[in-house]
Amino acid sequence: MKDMRIRLIASAALLLASHAMAQPQHELNLMPMPTSVQPGFGRLAVDQSFSVATTGFKDAMLERGIHRFVAELSRQTGMSLKRKLADSPSPTLLIHAVHGSERVQRLSEDESYELVISESGAKLTAPSPLGILHGLQTFLQLVETTANGFSVPVVTIEDRPRFAWRGLLVDVGRHFIPVDVLKRNLDGMAAVKMNVLHWHLYDNEGFRVESKRFPRLQEAGSDGLYYTQDEIREFVAYAHDRGIRIVPEFEMPGHSRSLFAGYPELASGPGPYKIEPGGADAVMDPTQEKAYKFIDKLFEEMAKLFPDNYFHIGGDEVNGSQWAANPKIQTFIHSHGMKTNQDLQAYFNQRLQKILSKHHKIMMGWDEVLHPDLPRTVVVQSWRGQESLATAARQGYSSLLSFGYYLDLMWPASRHYTVDPMSGAAASLNPQEKSHVIGGEACMWAEWVTPENIDSRIWPRSAAIAERLWSSPEVQDLGSMYTRLDKLSRRLEWLGLTHRSSMVPAFYRMAGTNDIAALCTLAEVVEPVKDYTRMNSLKTVWDFRGPLNRLVDIVRPESDQARRLRDVVQTYIASGYKDKVAEGEIRTRLAAWRDNDARLHPLLEQSFLLSELAPLSEDLSTLGAAGLLALDYLDKSTPSPRSWRVQQRALVERAKTPKADLLLMVVEPVQQLIEGSGGQTQEP
Amino acid sequence: MKDMRIRLIASAALLLASHAMAQPQHELNLMPMPTSVQPGFGRLAVDQSFSVATTGFKDAMLERGIHRFVAELSRQTGMSLKRKLADSPSPTLLIHAVHGSERVQRLSEDESYELVISESGAKLTAPSPLGILHGLQTFLQLVETTANGFSVPVVTIEDRPRFAWRGLLVDVGRHFIPVDVLKRNLDGMAAVKMNVLHWHLYDNEGFRVESKRFPRLQEAGSDGLYYTQDEIREFVAYAHDRGIRIVPEFEMPGHSRSLFAGYPELASGPGPYKIEPGGADAVMDPTQEKAYKFIDKLFEEMAKLFPDNYFHIGGDEVNGSQWAANPKIQTFIHSHGMKTNQDLQAYFNQRLQKILSKHHKIMMGWDEVLHPDLPRTVVVQSWRGQESLATAARQGYSSLLSFGYYLDLMWPASRHYTVDPMSGAAASLNPQEKSHVIGGEACMWAEWVTPENIDSRIWPRSAAIAERLWSSPEVQDLGSMYTRLDKLSRRLEWLGLTHRSSMVPAFYRMAGTNDIAALCTLAEVVEPVKDYTRMNSLKTVWDFRGPLNRLVDIVRPESDQARRLRDVVQTYIASGYKDKVAEGEIRTRLAAWRDNDARLHPLLEQSFLLSELAPLSEDLSTLGAAGLLALDYLDKSTPSPRSWRVQQRALVERAKTPKADLLLMVVEPVQQLIEGSGGQTQEP
Repeated sequence: MKDMRIRLIASAALLLASHAMAQPQHELNLMPMPTSVQPGFGRLAVDQSFSVATTGFKDAMLERGIHRFVAELSRQTGMSLKRKLADSPSPTLLIHAVHGSERVQRLSEDESYELVISESGAKLTAPSPLGILHGLQTFLQLVETTANGFSVPVVTIEDRPRFAWRGLLVDVGRHFIPVDVLKRNLDGMAAVKMNVLHWHLYDNEGFRVESKRFPRLQEAGSDGLYYTQDEIREFVAYAHDRGIRIVPEFEMPGHSRSLFAGYPELASGPGPYKIEPGGADAVMDPTQEKAYKFIDKLFEEMAKLFPDNYFHIGGDEVNGSQWAANPKIQTFIHSHGMKTNQDLQAYFNQRLQKILSKHHKIMMGWDEVLHPDLPRTVVVQSWRGQESLATAARQGYSSLLSFGYYLDLMWPASRHYTVDPMSGAAASLNPQEKSHVIGGEACMWAEWVTPENIDSRIWPRSAAIAERLWSSPEVQDLGSMYTRLDKLSRRLEWLGLTHRSSMVPAFYRMAGTNDIAALCTLAEVVEPVKDYTRMNSLKTVWDFRGPLNRLVDIVRPESDQARRLRDVVQTYIASGYKDKVAEGEIRTRLAAWRDNDARLHPLLEQSFLLSELAPLSEDLSTLGAAGLLALDYLDKSTPSPRSWRVQQRALVERAKTPKADLLLMVVEPVQQLIEGSGGQTQEP
Repeated sequence: MKDMRIRLIASAALLLASHAMAQPQHELNLMPMPTSVQPGFGRLAVDQSFSVATTGFKDAMLERGIHRFVAELSRQTGMSLKRKLADSPSPTLLIHAVHGSERVQRLSEDESYELVISESGAKLTAPSPLGILHGLQTFLQLVETTANGFSVPVVTIEDRPRFAWRGLLVDVGRHFIPVDVLKRNLDGMAAVKMNVLHWHLYDNEGFRVESKRFPRLQEAGSDGLYYTQDEIREFVAYAHDRGIRIVPEFEMPGHSRSLFAGYPELASGPGPYKIEPGGADAVMDPTQEKAYKFIDKLFEEMAKLFPDNYFHIGGDEVNGSQWAANPKIQTFIHSHGMKTNQDLQAYFNQRLQKILSKHHKIMMGWDEVLHPDLPRTVVVQSWRGQESLATAARQGYSSLLSFGYYLDLMWPASRHYTVDPMSGAAASLNPQEKSHVIGGEACMWAEWVTPENIDSRIWPRSAAIAERLWSSPEVQDLGSMYTRLDKLSRRLEWLGLTHRSSMVPAFYRMAGTNDIAALCTLAEVVEPVKDYTRMNSLKTVWDFRGPLNRLVDIVRPESDQARRLRDVVQTYIASGYKDKVAEGEIRTRLAAWRDNDARLHPLLEQSFLLSELAPLSEDLSTLGAAGLLALDYLDKSTPSPRSWRVQQRALVERAKTPKADLLLMVVEPVQQLIEGSGGQTQEP
């Protein structure tokens, strides 16, 4: 894409030629980066006289969207702005939508927009309100505080999404997340132009939807925490207003123990079933006609509640042991000419697909649903890798990627960012096959998630995934991404998201005292262990009812402070250990860590939630001291003794071991300093 | 009160005699302090097995209250606790209410409770769910993080309020406050056992209630921001669930320009009227019968919407100029044998009282309504001082105090805390007269208040007023109050209150950059100017639509850091300038301030919101440097030269002058150091 401009630095020559109002254009704080950004000169003031008018199509949804925009701009600037649309032919922002958007938002709708800002006013044009909503978010991101007031830069932006499906899955089965928490996350999604909330509505541990037809689903299948149908309707409308589709997931035949708590007759095994841990593993019995009657009635009810065209039936990780243990099921398999449990699941999925089709829904499932017997209308969501995504696309199935976007694995934003739906196995698809890849979804699986920490698990990392799915694949610069992500992360606080603020009360809970500075210092440089390490290290059966109040539950998945140390150590090394500013910053940090254990230790003894942190805190102080010594050697330009380095390596290795399910994220740069202090000699 | 125990420090001898589980009882973090606290030995664990059961009376309100309690305890501890009530005869907490509370909560209801905690369980008993709700809040305050887990101390608490009316007025006329913001403030009120939200529903600048009978009230009388009747009903129910009465205020005949925007014929002057600033000053015309017809119909509608027995008609600050300027009104006054405008207002109030009585409401008004012609059922709210409170009580009117509790005046908590409804003129009332003093109300007038900063204006200071109205008048210790207030303030964050967290995004808005450390350092030691200084210093007509994004709008009303400096300087002086720990802390703070201007200055030039802070920032640095020099003199035990001190005094005087509507709160202790550095010599 030739006109793609990632870094919008106007040349000094152009600047000199411009008039007094003009200011140098630094990189704009846009995320996701738009398709095309043409910077200009000068700025448009955003002050108390700010007004919005519309031409062209107008409906209640668009008006509500504009009202929200004005309210957000008010909050962001601390100015009380006119809510009513202006009659003026020259408002600050003129909005023109060509036609309305669909009553039920469709995958294929045009979400593009054009935003043209001059010094005298801005114009936002889009085929439909969907594009207008995106353009308004872009406008909000452009507002900056300057010496002369709030303003937006003169710029011309043309923008459209790369993928039509830009989703976030939220698992509310393992831990219930109240509607108000989900709503603020919808606001966050809208801010980064995501357009699908995939609502994983239940799992073994809890059924979260009120069914009037089968009330024992929520009564026996939950701990009393579920969404009423009124709440769901209001939530779906809330999402629709923000250009977000709600795709419900009714997972079957596996991951569905909570179904059987109230309706054990649907299961393949004898039960009894309960949502509490230790209950029998459970898979639905696909050989009984009564199962399809149940599903038909349930889906009929739910198809009305969830108006979206797509309906997710899960279908992943089916445990074959219950089927294998049930002679009736085995007989069914053989008498119907099937060979494997996979064939039985395909049969089940075919039946589901017919039921859903009757209720005018398109079926979706995880990659395991892929089977030649299924019609090509089915959408496949790949969690196992780009391989299965490519396989599905090659066979003509619409497919989307979630592999690489699992937020619960606690990866840094940079790692998610580099995963592209079209990379890996998908890179070899032909254009026709590629057109079947419709997008991706960040996944917030909720084993370790509560209403308190969910925001910090989703944000700001999801914004990096949102950019991957919206922007050109050429948008790759990690430095730029992190700079913009940080700005965005701060802006998301205006939406009520607690990803930054929630740690503080949790620290006070842990400490039971007011002096949390030393705890913060430690917390800032650790991250939760990655992948499934925490789950795998459990010594008992995982219990979703267990407390989630340890430091690992509170700290952010990614340490900004550790990233900063890595960067400044790189700068220092690249300067041949000469950059005194970098060294000064490194020393300040290392000294604070060296001294931290002495400050934190008294707290550790007072709180059962802190005591497990003792070895971690010691490691941090040891690393701080070792790093400072390494700097001393580097300053003196005398290589550190080999024996010293060998000793330090042992400390480094110890510090690399996870403790309290946490990783100390500053080991590597300190290690680099230690090794660097040895001079040019290469050692094994 | 002999059994009153403010400081619950068990003696060492008793401790030694107790068994192993026993721990020394420090002061409990209770606010408001209960009537009687009998500390015991040992603790009751609050862990995953925590359960609640009830005996005695039970209704849906009580059950919802218990569910909220469990949810709050879950949040506070990070543990997922059983929501369902236990069948067990020995739950962790056994709740016994004797009977139900009233469908419409009454002023006279018994709110007492008894909480008995032993090592094996807790029992909470109360006449009605109102007392249970209070007792549950006390339990939540008792939960502490210890080395062995969460637990509450063994204790016996008997508790009942000193005053029946413990209110918070929120003005939503000047600035609209959305329902969700008010709801979290109701949660805060419940946490400190306040029981009345006085909803000042409109003022000159906006009418905030939907009237179906007179829709032009909200249509012409607001900027589109008002509460729908559905919202109000839901809000009233939300409050009732929390033991909080909603008392609406329909202010007349003054402060009601927003009424006349839609119904100008009700006013005493010709109009036209609009809510925008600069419109005609406006008072209702009490001589027209149509006014009483209008009021009758409006109050009929509103009496249904607001079920509380009390109905506030305002009645304060009536501007007589419109009445004086209207010959028809003057003729009416004379032809009805009245002498003054006050007589006319009394006539008006009598008519209102009859209308309200017809709609089964008890009339309330501000102290100006006090007039011998009014029946003794009227309740008088005193904003002008304890004098008028005492006068009303002497005449047999129920009265409550708001003088001294105006949160918008930006007083420190300690100043509100020392205001007692029974002090001043009220101290000389006889017991019979005293019984007419029914309580008090904190008042959140909203000239400078937005949804963003309202929490920080109300909290935590209102908790000090809540304690004054609930606890024994002997509870007076300021040190204890601040210690407990600080703990409470942190706990309030679990309710979603943003009084601590809201500053951060606002600082980023101001700075327009990520480096806000220097701004924080300055912000931590300033407070908004006090009383009506800010209003009085306005150079133009006050405009409620103006931006509220300056530092004065963001910083807390009371600086903890400044209080801390004052305290530590006192300690240092009291030690004869010998306490090296105190001196070290003072030096650290002073040095940070001295160096702060150099760090902040670059930011000030980049942001129009920061530029006004330049002189303030310079003053802080100057003070830091002067204080450090004073310490140097004190260290050397050589008196500072008189000429130096004279010079510093000029700086100190300059630093005392408000700048950007802010006060530097660290001037006084630095001044003490400077003067102290002169040695024993007394100077003029």
